[in-house]
Amino acid sequence: MKVGIIGAGQLARMLLEDASALGIDCVVLAESPDDGAALVAHSAIIGAPSDRAALEKLADSVAITTFDHELVDLELLADLEAQGHQFAPSPSALLYAVDKAAMRTLLADHGLPIPPFDVFTPDRPFDGESVGANFGWPLVIKSARGGYDGRGVFIVDNENEANAVVGDLHEAGITVLIEALVPIRSELAALVCRAHDGSIVAWPVVETSQIAGVCREVLVPGSVRDEDRIAGEAIARQIAELVGVVGVMAVELFVTDEGLLINELAMRPHNSGHWTQNGSATSQFENHLRAVASLPLGITTTTAAAVASVNIFGGDHPSGDDEALAAALSVTGAHLHLYGKSSRPGRKLGHVNAVGTDPVAVRATAWDAATKFGSPLPDALEKRTS
Amino acid sequence: MKVGIIGAGQLARMLLEDASALGIDCVVLAESPDDGAALVAHSAIIGAPSDRAALEKLADSVAITTFDHELVDLELLADLEAQGHQFAPSPSALLYAVDKAAMRTLLADHGLPIPPFDVFTPDRPFDGESVGANFGWPLVIKSARGGYDGRGVFIVDNENEANAVVGDLHEAGITVLIEALVPIRSELAALVCRAHDGSIVAWPVVETSQIAGVCREVLVPGSVRDEDRIAGEAIARQIAELVGVVGVMAVELFVTDEGLLINELAMRPHNSGHWTQNGSATSQFENHLRAVASLPLGITTTTAAAVASVNIFGGDHPSGDDEALAAALSVTGAHLHLYGKSSRPGRKLGHVNAVGTDPVAVRATAWDAATKFGSPLPDALEKRTS
Repeated sequence: MKVGIIGAGQLARMLLEDASALGIDCVVLAESPDDGAALVAHSAIIGAPSDRAALEKLADSVAITTFDHELVDLELLADLEAQGHQFAPSPSALLYAVDKAAMRTLLADHGLPIPPFDVFTPDRPFDGESVGANFGWPLVIKSARGGYDGRGVFIVDNENEANAVVGDLHEAGITVLIEALVPIRSELAALVCRAHDGSIVAWPVVETSQIAGVCREVLVPGSVRDEDRIAGEAIARQIAELVGVVGVMAVELFVTDEGLLINELAMRPHNSGHWTQNGSATSQFENHLRAVASLPLGITTTTAAAVASVNIFGGDHPSGDDEALAAALSVTGAHLHLYGKSSRPGRKLGHVNAVGTDPVAVRATAWDAATKFGSPLPDALEKRTS
Repeated sequence: MKVGIIGAGQLARMLLEDASALGIDCVVLAESPDDGAALVAHSAIIGAPSDRAALEKLADSVAITTFDHELVDLELLADLEAQGHQFAPSPSALLYAVDKAAMRTLLADHGLPIPPFDVFTPDRPFDGESVGANFGWPLVIKSARGGYDGRGVFIVDNENEANAVVGDLHEAGITVLIEALVPIRSELAALVCRAHDGSIVAWPVVETSQIAGVCREVLVPGSVRDEDRIAGEAIARQIAELVGVVGVMAVELFVTDEGLLINELAMRPHNSGHWTQNGSATSQFENHLRAVASLPLGITTTTAAAVASVNIFGGDHPSGDDEALAAALSVTGAHLHLYGKSSRPGRKLGHVNAVGTDPVAVRATAWDAATKFGSPLPDALEKRTS
């Protein structure tokens, strides 16, 4: 079985690690030979995800193709699918991870819990004053497509700011999603994997901490309440069936005073699931590959009472050299997962997993290793677990 | 950090899987582009381990080189080392894994427990009658170099057979090791990893089952007695220091009525340590890479009360296709590790690990998945655990 991967970032890199053990050969489509996965891949095609010739070459060389990211051209993919190439997830499912406006509309149509929203295509006049009257200030403006890790998301305080941001996006031909800024108590993520035959497995709902839209740490079980754990998994299962995803799907959730609200969807292995590499009987990467390759899904049992996963970012001074790696690996029980990237400030270089019986200890271990590698300890990290 | 690997079999393949997460780039020296590790490696040089030009190319492109197997030319390696290239383990240590006569002599000199033995270089006359009088019949004849998985090992019943086997080996210029055939109760393996700085970590001593010299299953903790566990680890630590190995070293041990006897040494990740991929905080592959790359060693805590590891062999009828893979992965809790090899009868294609609380259950899980993949269930497998 040969599987193609569109994109060659860290998710593709970690898919390759697990593909080897399953005997699955992979071909990655990399924008550059220096991409994290291209550095370790046996087979890489160099090309943009919007490059028809490169995509055809990839699809021709594999049985089925999956994704490292959602910055893809859905029309082009649908065209290739119509020609007989297989994609998992299919472009018709992937739409809801690519396009936030389509996602919000679908979820609203099915009564799933989301914040109040409205969609402004470039040809729909936007009036900050009336929108502000509906949603209150501040409100959230998102570009419907192309954003990730907080990019393409704007929180604006008044109609002038709103008009300016939407004007710029509309001028660039970008559809805009307006959302109420909902006061949140914490953030969770629900991770599931769906097979071609419709079977679904779910990992436990986890607590995530973001700063400026970027995930900094994931705690399992964290401070997730039982009711949120149950509701979060049910929501993720429902959406997976609704959209017909094949492979891993992550649902980012807000915990509010009124219950859970769905924030974002991702249809690929997700940062909130990196803990599964050391804390679950089957990692999200292995199950994604199993699903894509029409193999039975693996069990998602946690292998420890407490798991922490902390992202490593490049700091202001050099990090990620051999000395930093040695320092991080000197931390007992720290599992490093590096992405092969050179360090620069704010760049996500890897993550550390720690597993054990004591949530406080595993969190300390993971942060200890991450900071020894040179990752800055954020002042603003809210201590949501105590 | 860039590491070279001489040989591109399954051990190299599994080293690559863990190297990716550590951010270590690897280059493999493969005899063929179809070798298990060459199929997944980003960088491969095609050449025999005895090919000086290929070895120089490999050594020039990396900081340090390690090994997938011991079928190497020690003189050539020593030459390259003298030129400033680094090897881990160094050829001076590797000698004792390559040459059974040198190994036996060293261990005897240091009072370590081994069976009675004698060494016959090609120029030393061999007389079956007098040797038989010393060692009794049957006795064991081993070629001092080049054997593995039971190859190069002969059990002979009388002086005629002995004279014939030794005559053939001597004619081929091969030094011969004669050993008493010791009645064994069971077989164990002690696995350690030694760093450049001399620090050593040890995994628990495990029980192994061989048929015709080939490992079929590994059980942790198996039926290993406490005294053998303690003595086995002590022996492995002592040998690691004695030979100055860098990286993983496995010591195969016989349990006899008179205590432990050392059978073989391997200075690389070893079949008896594959269980560490799913049953230990740090796998043998990760710790081997850490040692080679001068990084701190990881902890070797077991992550489950019971672990079983069962090798998968090609059967008489087709095995290892997509259907067989799906059948094996349908076994709950089975962790498959495949080597990318096409199936043929008797060929080692992969292994299955299973972890849990119940030794009987994990063993059943591993055998279930291995046989579902098409691996024959051996009639002769001695049930040493009950």
